[in-house]
Amino acid sequence: MKVLVLGGDGYCGWPTSLHLSDAGHDVVIVDNCVRRQIDAELSAESLTPIASLKDRVKAWREVSGQQMGVEFGDLLDWEFVSDLFERHQPEAVVHFAEQRAAPYSMIDRRHAVYTQHNNIIGNLNVLFAINEYVPDCHLVKLGTMGEYGQPNIDIEEGFIEIEHKGRKDVLPFPKQPGSWYHLSKVHDSYNIHFACKIWGIRATDLNQGVVYGTVTPQTERDPRLANRFDYEEVFGTVLNRFCVQAAIGHPLTVYGNGSQTRGYLDIRDTVRCIELAVENPAERGEFRVFNQFTEEFSVRQLADLVIDAAGKLGVEARLEEIENPRVEKYDHYYNAAHTKLLDLGLEPHYLGDGLLDSLMNIAIQYGDRIDRDVVMPSVDWRTGKARQRIHKAPAEPSTL
Amino acid sequence: MKVLVLGGDGYCGWPTSLHLSDAGHDVVIVDNCVRRQIDAELSAESLTPIASLKDRVKAWREVSGQQMGVEFGDLLDWEFVSDLFERHQPEAVVHFAEQRAAPYSMIDRRHAVYTQHNNIIGNLNVLFAINEYVPDCHLVKLGTMGEYGQPNIDIEEGFIEIEHKGRKDVLPFPKQPGSWYHLSKVHDSYNIHFACKIWGIRATDLNQGVVYGTVTPQTERDPRLANRFDYEEVFGTVLNRFCVQAAIGHPLTVYGNGSQTRGYLDIRDTVRCIELAVENPAERGEFRVFNQFTEEFSVRQLADLVIDAAGKLGVEARLEEIENPRVEKYDHYYNAAHTKLLDLGLEPHYLGDGLLDSLMNIAIQYGDRIDRDVVMPSVDWRTGKARQRIHKAPAEPSTL
Repeated sequence: MKVLVLGGDGYCGWPTSLHLSDAGHDVVIVDNCVRRQIDAELSAESLTPIASLKDRVKAWREVSGQQMGVEFGDLLDWEFVSDLFERHQPEAVVHFAEQRAAPYSMIDRRHAVYTQHNNIIGNLNVLFAINEYVPDCHLVKLGTMGEYGQPNIDIEEGFIEIEHKGRKDVLPFPKQPGSWYHLSKVHDSYNIHFACKIWGIRATDLNQGVVYGTVTPQTERDPRLANRFDYEEVFGTVLNRFCVQAAIGHPLTVYGNGSQTRGYLDIRDTVRCIELAVENPAERGEFRVFNQFTEEFSVRQLADLVIDAAGKLGVEARLEEIENPRVEKYDHYYNAAHTKLLDLGLEPHYLGDGLLDSLMNIAIQYGDRIDRDVVMPSVDWRTGKARQRIHKAPAEPSTL
Repeated sequence: MKVLVLGGDGYCGWPTSLHLSDAGHDVVIVDNCVRRQIDAELSAESLTPIASLKDRVKAWREVSGQQMGVEFGDLLDWEFVSDLFERHQPEAVVHFAEQRAAPYSMIDRRHAVYTQHNNIIGNLNVLFAINEYVPDCHLVKLGTMGEYGQPNIDIEEGFIEIEHKGRKDVLPFPKQPGSWYHLSKVHDSYNIHFACKIWGIRATDLNQGVVYGTVTPQTERDPRLANRFDYEEVFGTVLNRFCVQAAIGHPLTVYGNGSQTRGYLDIRDTVRCIELAVENPAERGEFRVFNQFTEEFSVRQLADLVIDAAGKLGVEARLEEIENPRVEKYDHYYNAAHTKLLDLGLEPHYLGDGLLDSLMNIAIQYGDRIDRDVVMPSVDWRTGKARQRIHKAPAEPSTL
């Protein structure tokens, strides 16, 4: 199947591109490599050294014999987007190409506006391009479990039947997103749902949990295929960050009391979920929502798991509760449905010692690349200043 | 009270500015006059001749002795917005300054993107400015009843208690907006709700019904104070358009079977609702939602009322069902709560013969300004083309 992977150079997009290519799909990676530019902005780097997009694709051709296409451009540029869809006539589009870090969107006004503008308008351009050039194409869009927030009722997959004053309807599940980033995904979901309704396009909205891990069977086949591994406070997801903290003898920084519970999944399940969605397209006019995660953990549970795993490797780790820079609920109810991808055939990689060992070993292997200055939170949800400096002053001595 | 009226030159903003000024508030009108530019784009004009913003404000000073401030600028321009809030230190901000026509947002990709970009980012800038310069200021934001769509259950004011699998929560009312414009208002509501939660600002979201009428006690005091009256298919709301159609002997164009039911209100109630919201501010951190309408009508009911009123003035009018350019439900359930503004003291002007006479007489008075070419729908919800010409070719003979 001809598949465009928008954001195919990123943390989820790159291993997904490899996985789809390995499964026999004709993959074209579309990216503007802004994530690499943001590394420069944040003075942070992937823990794992990553090759240029050109070298990645070349390495994949060498090890697999498969040729992936590359299109460099920005989804905000309609001339680029329209040309892209008209020329490639994709059967499916996997859309990862959004600013995806909640803390990044909370830095200041400019970063909030950048995030919403980039995500909402880029996604609108994709919708208009599908409608105009490939109306039968299936949009597989990455959302987030964070769109739902933490309601005191069970979270369903996109829709909920509500009985109210003796009448019933099935309506979009009420959302309570917790950052400008999460909001942008809610806005996207509404826009996509509407496009399905008026134009009859096909869409699957994947509300993904927090992803951990970095390795997939494809990324292991050559060092140039390595996936990025973010451990700093802005882009680093919590489990990856904890493993790095343990490896360098830094306390595992738990925000508040650590009772915040979320859905999580292994990156090997991310790539498989995308494949399942692509190979089982939504109907024409259907707006389908899958909750894409495999297990629920509290932050404290994750910290305890990492401390145990570190202990078995002879590394002594400890957690430290620090002031929560985010505005979040504690000790809340959390129970979210996630059966639709299992029904399509997902066989989850549950979090276990093997994966934790592997993450810790990566952290130890690249220990000399770790910058201790970037693991502590600096972005505060409550400030909301219009302008904020986020540079880590390189001359400042580490406080730990 | 020092009040900024963003969009104070528009259809609702201008009479609101006058009303608040008349009630003794210190009003500053903020506008970029883009609505006047759009008149040029659409080759359409207000039925009523409207004075320039400068002349309007001058006339108001002459008749009332009250001086309103004027700030010309764009909410997308952060330098303008931050300077505005820092200098004026408003106690309340009434935010009308958004692209407000569903059909305009549906013209093509550029108009969809313009609408969402303008509305969402402008509103974000307002939120950041309040937080940074006047955290105690009360934001009174215009939303729309169209955010809710037409669910098969009663519509509540912003929030609904949901019981699900034996648990309960009060959650944001599920939304089903019906155009890129309506979507932009949903996105705004989520963004404002979040700002209230993280920064503790005060906000009232007014989900307004379809407004009709043009005259308020203040606009009548001088011809230069006249409010705009849109009757064409893009900006003209349905009742105003029907009155003009009746006055010129054009069939009243009902889209589809006319069973579409919505909430409506007189513009004299709009200005009073804003006053009530401003004078009874939300609490710090509160995101308050009022449904701002007074009566529900189906489109066909409105047509019948106009036909009756025209008949009493000796004008024979008839309705004509035309193909619906929108994607809408017919024969749907519709029952929406709207008690919160009544509780604050709103005394509605219900739709009656007097108002219909007045609208018909305005239509007859300015009959020579009516362009018959612009009353039929030209914007199609189903097309979704990236580029569409919307100019009415002036050389084309009218088909009616």
